[in-house]
Amino acid sequence: MLIVKLGGSAGIDPALTLDDLAALSVEQPVVFVHGANAVLDEWMRRFGKEPRLVQSSSGQVSRYTDAETMDLMLAVYAGLVNKRLVEALQARGVNAVGLTALDGRIARGPRKETIRAIENGKPKVLRGDYAGSINEIDPTLLRLLLEHGYLPVVTPPALSYHGEAINVDGDKLALQLALALQANALVILSNTPGLLANLQDPSSLIREIVVDDPESVARAMEAAQGRMKKKVEAGCRAVAAGIPQVVFADARVEHPIRRALAGEGTRLVARSTIGVNA
Amino acid sequence: MLIVKLGGSAGIDPALTLDDLAALSVEQPVVFVHGANAVLDEWMRRFGKEPRLVQSSSGQVSRYTDAETMDLMLAVYAGLVNKRLVEALQARGVNAVGLTALDGRIARGPRKETIRAIENGKPKVLRGDYAGSINEIDPTLLRLLLEHGYLPVVTPPALSYHGEAINVDGDKLALQLALALQANALVILSNTPGLLANLQDPSSLIREIVVDDPESVARAMEAAQGRMKKKVEAGCRAVAAGIPQVVFADARVEHPIRRALAGEGTRLVARSTIGVNA
Repeated sequence: MLIVKLGGSAGIDPALTLDDLAALSVEQPVVFVHGANAVLDEWMRRFGKEPRLVQSSSGQVSRYTDAETMDLMLAVYAGLVNKRLVEALQARGVNAVGLTALDGRIARGPRKETIRAIENGKPKVLRGDYAGSINEIDPTLLRLLLEHGYLPVVTPPALSYHGEAINVDGDKLALQLALALQANALVILSNTPGLLANLQDPSSLIREIVVDDPESVARAMEAAQGRMKKKVEAGCRAVAAGIPQVVFADARVEHPIRRALAGEGTRLVARSTIGVNA
Repeated sequence: MLIVKLGGSAGIDPALTLDDLAALSVEQPVVFVHGANAVLDEWMRRFGKEPRLVQSSSGQVSRYTDAETMDLMLAVYAGLVNKRLVEALQARGVNAVGLTALDGRIARGPRKETIRAIENGKPKVLRGDYAGSINEIDPTLLRLLLEHGYLPVVTPPALSYHGEAINVDGDKLALQLALALQANALVILSNTPGLLANLQDPSSLIREIVVDDPESVARAMEAAQGRMKKKVEAGCRAVAAGIPQVVFADARVEHPIRRALAGEGTRLVARSTIGVNA
């Protein structure tokens, strides 16, 4: 079982990942998770609404998601991007089924209506946020689809305990699905070669993060800027929970998934044997 | 097995239908099909794109769907409207799964890239249309979901034989699903009390269309304006194919589905026994 997450940043042509997915999904069950950040920003601006990013006190960056932003998020993530990916997989002969984590209660958790954030350097309390975190995964629907030869294509949002759509982080969703489905590998593809020590220098790739070496993790968290911090945290948790292979790799190359599985990008490893996961 | 189609015209509050669905889906398997025409028109205008309706030589009205319109259709039908309905059903305790007819190849057919249409009274040939018709239904995915207690929420587009998203009529999709799943009843809800002899007079409801009486069908087709023609055609085909109960009814009342099943609205019936369908 393989979980592939394709980031939604600008500059990524999903065709490269989809070609690889079409070939790999014949060999093993695959769940494909995706984001759509750049397209959402673009559509918000076309609607005359400026995207609003806020930083938590711990330095994590997230999107402030009021009701209108959630409408647009549903339109872009669950509609435009998810279904264009399903269409492109169908055109490649793959029987894809596009879902949000709302559908079939795939991912649930508490909504955090209020966010304490730092915006333009100032602390603020923002209300009306449709965002939250994932506390539980129900893998029933995904298992059912995989057992019957479908390729699930999954994207945020998730479902709150009060039945509301909540914005959740796509990398954390991929991580939680990998854990619940006991995946062999979690490949997180984005528009960088992996985690870079210096964001401006593509040759400064950090080849390995040793998740049970506090110094290695500290170096990685220092190097990680903005949204990359969430990827590092999710990746470390995946390895610590026993996912055998966790990789951050480049979505912009031919065969991005195969290359990631073959050792390119940033590998997350444990020195000690933490867990066993078939 | 019950198929409920909720139209996407303006002036419909889906909450009434959803309340009914939540109660009825406990008693029997239900597939919920929906449109989103009014919201799509609204979003197209917000994007500075005027909706383009064309009339075929036979008088049927359809939306000209170029690639950009299809992007918006996916955003509005598959994203915003489909997932807000899933969310609202989940909030009512119903384990809904939102899908387009692309997903799992639910509905496939030929794309008609060129449309010969009458626009502003003049005959025209329009190219680049992502529209088509449904030739086959694969009920596998829907059956799988129904057998495991999920309520499928399905919307256009469908999939062309070349793997492209194609705009198909929502009423015809509901009809084809009813046939493939051997439904007991097909309830088509919209923003009228049923088929009206005079569109301006809600009291002119045609109580019954006898589908094997050519005069009754001719009267119905004459009364049907615009998109209603497709409903009448789909409804007649459903009865002729043996669906025991086919009703056009009002979505704007309390318990719209129960009332339709109890005899309100326009019933489509056959005088002779055409087919038997459990």
